[in-house]
Amino acid sequence: MTVMPKSGVLDPEGRAIAHALGTLGFTGVEEVRAGKVIELTLAEADPAKARATAEEMARKLLANSVIESFRVELV
Amino acid sequence: MTVMPKSGVLDPEGRAIAHALGTLGFTGVEEVRAGKVIELTLAEADPAKARATAEEMARKLLANSVIESFRVELV
Repeated sequence: MTVMPKSGVLDPEGRAIAHALGTLGFTGVEEVRAGKVIELTLAEADPAKARATAEEMARKLLANSVIESFRVELV
Repeated sequence: MTVMPKSGVLDPEGRAIAHALGTLGFTGVEEVRAGKVIELTLAEADPAKARATAEEMARKLLANSVIESFRVELV
């Protein structure tokens, strides 16, 4: 699951990284957005149920729906 | 770019998430690993050069090579 700041929302971590990259001499960095990736290993074997559970986990805990969006990928 | 704790390395954030999910009543959570996803928009148009730059950024700043591994994806 990937959790990213919604576009338009201030991303202080992304900005701090962009600034640090500039300090290290990297040029041509137009934008940096920083988020979380959370790998969940679930006992649930049914893909649809596993996806629904992961989405519920995101809504209840893993993503702040006001400022973040999430994307679930089954692997 | 995705930055994850190397396997075998203690992942306190992943453990904290697993514990919190259990507290919220989620069952069947076998493992949780937490990492970072960093989206870099670079002016560099050449894919190979962009990848090389991103990998250099990871080695110099974005990933702690002792405890983390990184994966670059061009999108």
